[in-house]
Amino acid sequence: MTDTQNLGVTAAKGFRAAGVTAGLKASGTSDLALVVNDGPLHAAAGVFTSNRVHAAPVKWSRQVLKDGELAAVVLNSGGANACTGPEGFQDTHATAEKVAAELGVGAIEVAVCSTGLIGVRLPMDKLLPGIEQAAKALSSTGGEAAAIAIKTTDTVHKTAQVTSPAGWTVGGMAKGAGMLAPGLATMLVVVTTDAVVEAPQLDAALRDATRTTFDRVDSDGCMSTNDTVLLLASGASEVAPEQAEFAEAVRAVCANLARQLIGDAEGASKDIRIDVVNAATEDEAVDVARTISRSNLLKCAIHGEDPNWGRVLSAIGTTSAAFDPDQLDVAINNVWVCRNGGVGEDRELVSMKGREVVITADLKAGRADASIWTNDLTADYVHENSAYSS
Amino acid sequence: MTDTQNLGVTAAKGFRAAGVTAGLKASGTSDLALVVNDGPLHAAAGVFTSNRVHAAPVKWSRQVLKDGELAAVVLNSGGANACTGPEGFQDTHATAEKVAAELGVGAIEVAVCSTGLIGVRLPMDKLLPGIEQAAKALSSTGGEAAAIAIKTTDTVHKTAQVTSPAGWTVGGMAKGAGMLAPGLATMLVVVTTDAVVEAPQLDAALRDATRTTFDRVDSDGCMSTNDTVLLLASGASEVAPEQAEFAEAVRAVCANLARQLIGDAEGASKDIRIDVVNAATEDEAVDVARTISRSNLLKCAIHGEDPNWGRVLSAIGTTSAAFDPDQLDVAINNVWVCRNGGVGEDRELVSMKGREVVITADLKAGRADASIWTNDLTADYVHENSAYSS
Repeated sequence: MTDTQNLGVTAAKGFRAAGVTAGLKASGTSDLALVVNDGPLHAAAGVFTSNRVHAAPVKWSRQVLKDGELAAVVLNSGGANACTGPEGFQDTHATAEKVAAELGVGAIEVAVCSTGLIGVRLPMDKLLPGIEQAAKALSSTGGEAAAIAIKTTDTVHKTAQVTSPAGWTVGGMAKGAGMLAPGLATMLVVVTTDAVVEAPQLDAALRDATRTTFDRVDSDGCMSTNDTVLLLASGASEVAPEQAEFAEAVRAVCANLARQLIGDAEGASKDIRIDVVNAATEDEAVDVARTISRSNLLKCAIHGEDPNWGRVLSAIGTTSAAFDPDQLDVAINNVWVCRNGGVGEDRELVSMKGREVVITADLKAGRADASIWTNDLTADYVHENSAYSS
Repeated sequence: MTDTQNLGVTAAKGFRAAGVTAGLKASGTSDLALVVNDGPLHAAAGVFTSNRVHAAPVKWSRQVLKDGELAAVVLNSGGANACTGPEGFQDTHATAEKVAAELGVGAIEVAVCSTGLIGVRLPMDKLLPGIEQAAKALSSTGGEAAAIAIKTTDTVHKTAQVTSPAGWTVGGMAKGAGMLAPGLATMLVVVTTDAVVEAPQLDAALRDATRTTFDRVDSDGCMSTNDTVLLLASGASEVAPEQAEFAEAVRAVCANLARQLIGDAEGASKDIRIDVVNAATEDEAVDVARTISRSNLLKCAIHGEDPNWGRVLSAIGTTSAAFDPDQLDVAINNVWVCRNGGVGEDRELVSMKGREVVITADLKAGRADASIWTNDLTADYVHENSAYSS
């Protein structure tokens, strides 16, 4: 498999996309994206936020995906349509109906994704004409415009793709690092493929991929009301891949997009990978890594390029994972500054000048490993998230 | 009961205290406190951090408290003595032995508390002479000097007291808001009383008090390796109170000190009380309040005086507590900005100019309530915690 140029959701054959300006954002930049699957297959799968407070478009899209088919996805930035009550759900429904009418498909074949402020109704008088505009702009090279239109506080748009020598492609786009994006919240991802894959296999590949990619991005510990990751297959390549090979391609695209999300997290100056090794179970490795990734004190220390391993240990100590506190080893950028729960190599040996920082915690309790990506905590993060909606 | 002047740990009869400069801190301010119980009773109880990575003084003090007796407590700022291995434990032991020799008591009657950087050995060549100095300086009015000597990044020292009309007193001192204090970490609290109360009753009163006071202070979600709260009884008033009345006095002193900790949290500009009402159980109320209190996005919004109720709802939605997302009400400073999971009263009605902010979440799932105190997230917090040990 090879990475080629980044056409995102239109890298795979059988897809058209567009990104237009409906006028939802005060900034006047593009804010509405449409992705259409021209088939012949219309198989689809999705994963959604596990937040019990979830937005109208999440309720809608989860429902329409039950039959494993989608003809189109419409995405808007400039408003999350979360906590907007029955009226908000009607707005989502009307959005899907409008897309369906423009494309000549059924509304239940249209997924809807929204991102922006919670608790504010969408301006439907702008959104619905925007859909007409987007339908007219659909193009087999529209993937980049679509990726740009779903940006909120993202500084760059994010696309990725993998093409198999067998002639099929997986491509995708993403916005917004986890909940790092503020009231905005939300990670929205659409991945497309022209491989011939049915819905159950799409679902399996997507769940397997998100489990170790998007689910292990934790920039600020906050969970969105709107997170949505969709995978659509057109079958246009007429090639049916082995499931393992296909799943690996989906995983590669998701991992690439997830890494881009962390690299563009709001206010962040460091991208931090927490590697927990030799845990008793993978779940415990994830739990310990996530707990470390959520220590504000540690995130501040890393911002200050301070190899403060005591803050790693104090975070590990709050978990119930199997380990002996007097056996813990911790490395920062490969310098084992903590050995057996105490002072290890000289902390002066640690260089933290680069943007990427790797923290390794060896629990010496088994053979399971897991990694979580996070960011540092900065004054810029505070500024962006305290000034946003006021 | 009445609040009078703040003599802290020497407000109750039968106690002497001192605070001196042993030279542990680069700043040259006082750093060693000694509290002595002259009896006739020497009953004591303690609660400690639940962090599995805990410091040598926590291991020591937990051990010596098993018999329910203490003659003295020695506390140092300028070093946590955590993650310092067997040598660190020997340092704690030598500290207790030195105090015991100076006072003519047994080392197992001496509790030790430390606060400061993790992973650094204490300079015993300074600490031990400091103990001699402190023993000489002991005074029945030394409570304030002791409270000053345990400060780390605290901007003010913290004492509280309650005197019963029956003639007995509970007084105490505290330092460092939860883990808000940085690598420093740590809340250290010593409460004394001249009431005639045996160890089991002290223990019951202390656990009851900390459960709803110190345990509900969560300034930045981080748990220390060194947290220690001790309660010592001298019996010098010769009055044996009713348990309920005594427990209420201990709770009042702990609540007062806990509120002072939040009010002096590092870098904070707001003190935030999260009230969760009408939860199914008290545990669920605490869980929801704590989850809200740990949302960095919400803490940033409050710093920006932005009544961003969407961030409250998105935090509540991550819990497993009983509630219907479409029934949630949220008030900010008594304005119900969210009703039934959607837009409520006009957010423009909310004033957040004051330092204290109250967020109320009504789960409509039962009759249990709980409150957690937290702080906002500020650029000053980031600065203090990224610059500290580098």
